[in-house]
Amino acid sequence: MNSSALKIAVVGSGAVGGYYGGLLAHAGEDVHFLMRADLETVRANGLTIHTQGETITLPKVSCSATAEEIGPVDLVIIALKTTANPALETIIPPLLKPETTLITLQNGLGNEEFLSTRWGIQRVIGGLCFVCLNRTAPGVIDHFDAGSLSIGEFQRPVSERVTTLVDAFIRAGINARAVENLITERWRKLLWNISFNGLGIAGHGATVADVLANEGLRKVARDLMDEVLDAARRLGHEIGDEVADHHIDRSYALKRYRTSSMIDWEEGRPVETEAIWGEPWRQGVAAGAVMPRTEMLYQLIRHVS
Amino acid sequence: MNSSALKIAVVGSGAVGGYYGGLLAHAGEDVHFLMRADLETVRANGLTIHTQGETITLPKVSCSATAEEIGPVDLVIIALKTTANPALETIIPPLLKPETTLITLQNGLGNEEFLSTRWGIQRVIGGLCFVCLNRTAPGVIDHFDAGSLSIGEFQRPVSERVTTLVDAFIRAGINARAVENLITERWRKLLWNISFNGLGIAGHGATVADVLANEGLRKVARDLMDEVLDAARRLGHEIGDEVADHHIDRSYALKRYRTSSMIDWEEGRPVETEAIWGEPWRQGVAAGAVMPRTEMLYQLIRHVS
Repeated sequence: MNSSALKIAVVGSGAVGGYYGGLLAHAGEDVHFLMRADLETVRANGLTIHTQGETITLPKVSCSATAEEIGPVDLVIIALKTTANPALETIIPPLLKPETTLITLQNGLGNEEFLSTRWGIQRVIGGLCFVCLNRTAPGVIDHFDAGSLSIGEFQRPVSERVTTLVDAFIRAGINARAVENLITERWRKLLWNISFNGLGIAGHGATVADVLANEGLRKVARDLMDEVLDAARRLGHEIGDEVADHHIDRSYALKRYRTSSMIDWEEGRPVETEAIWGEPWRQGVAAGAVMPRTEMLYQLIRHVS
Repeated sequence: MNSSALKIAVVGSGAVGGYYGGLLAHAGEDVHFLMRADLETVRANGLTIHTQGETITLPKVSCSATAEEIGPVDLVIIALKTTANPALETIIPPLLKPETTLITLQNGLGNEEFLSTRWGIQRVIGGLCFVCLNRTAPGVIDHFDAGSLSIGEFQRPVSERVTTLVDAFIRAGINARAVENLITERWRKLLWNISFNGLGIAGHGATVADVLANEGLRKVARDLMDEVLDAARRLGHEIGDEVADHHIDRSYALKRYRTSSMIDWEEGRPVETEAIWGEPWRQGVAAGAVMPRTEMLYQLIRHVS
């Protein structure tokens, strides 16, 4: 994968796809967006990214309604909701060359496995977006919090394609880094998502600030992180307590941020219940972890979403 | 306390007060209702109780806007929401004679203590309503499920006044019984309320049937009961596992019953958060119980109500 000639397809152009794909396009990469709902608007108006007090406008972006129209690419950035994964069965094949890389920027557990089973583990890498993004209108993305993007091979050490891609993201202005253990990073991010996305929904729309401002809920958020930490460690991931502490500490700056799951729930869209709560809970319990809070959140969220 | 001459005041004429007071009045007791919101309607139309396929109508009931108008009575039936307990400070005194008995039919923990501290422990008895009641309109009460009423002295063995009162309730058609350990009965009822009232609110309006029909939530409900059982036992209350099993089993017949807490929450009224979740959780944890699910429910309900 040679960055100077990267042809990239972005599948799923909500906040995550629009933000990362948009910044890569802005930096000069050959980016093609596969879109459904926002297609006409983005064709007409392009993409707008509000980030750290700055507004980046891409008046003209390449966007298509079908993968066939895009054709084979070097890299597919998968930024669909995990609940839409079955749609990938028809989206991915027209985008593939023998050496096409698939990177999932999706939430939770199970996505690398989904891609590997279908298109070969050798194609699959993953990225963890520690970032706060909201799509506020078709083609308009708000970016809060500096954040970072961790990229790694799935079940293999960091490779040249990972470092090449990290460099491309860095050139696009993204705080990207290569990580040796992608799934450890997933668990690290799950600490935050299980707690804050979960309490957001079970708390009937509690923002990050709502959880933090309430001593009792803040303790529950931290206790949830301890359950997830224990599960992750039993599964072989070395994550220290300080990661949970740091998650709490950095969240004060997020203020009234509404997590993506909460917005999905509030707007009646499918919530990524299995990827964020179901699969981690099942894996943790199978490894001997005791996760009553995670289980209760999972069952409540399954019920209400 | 001689039942043949009982003058009774009912404080709080929602579903519980209207039902028990109404049936006692129907059986010929001298019952006086203290009402606020429903006063004019009940003065005009009386009380209507739909119970087990039968409709009981009391076209004329004695109701007052002030305790002074009722004056001293033999028995005060307290059926206010616990969140309104501070109002008792002014309501109770005009109703008292030296030997007036106060019976709290309220939910949760802390009510006998509230009354004892203010008007003397010797006055205080309590009742546990294992029953499903909804006030569907001013002066109109729907009663589901046969149910039962357990009455006991507070921190004393069953006395003659308790058996006299049990007999009066039985004459009114209520399945009443005297119990030796009132607070054990409270914990027995809390098993159900903490679980079903709690999951009803945290589940964004989950009915009893919704919880039972979802295997995951049903397990959470049973796990919550185990936490409460453990707390109760550590506090010296002998309650067997079969009580929790029986709570689950009998609940299937309740179908889409909406708990009183859930209705309070849905209608924007104060929820009895401290009496039902806060106080049992605090007492349990102080006794060494581990109650993560109860704590999470408590904190979520505190936040949303």
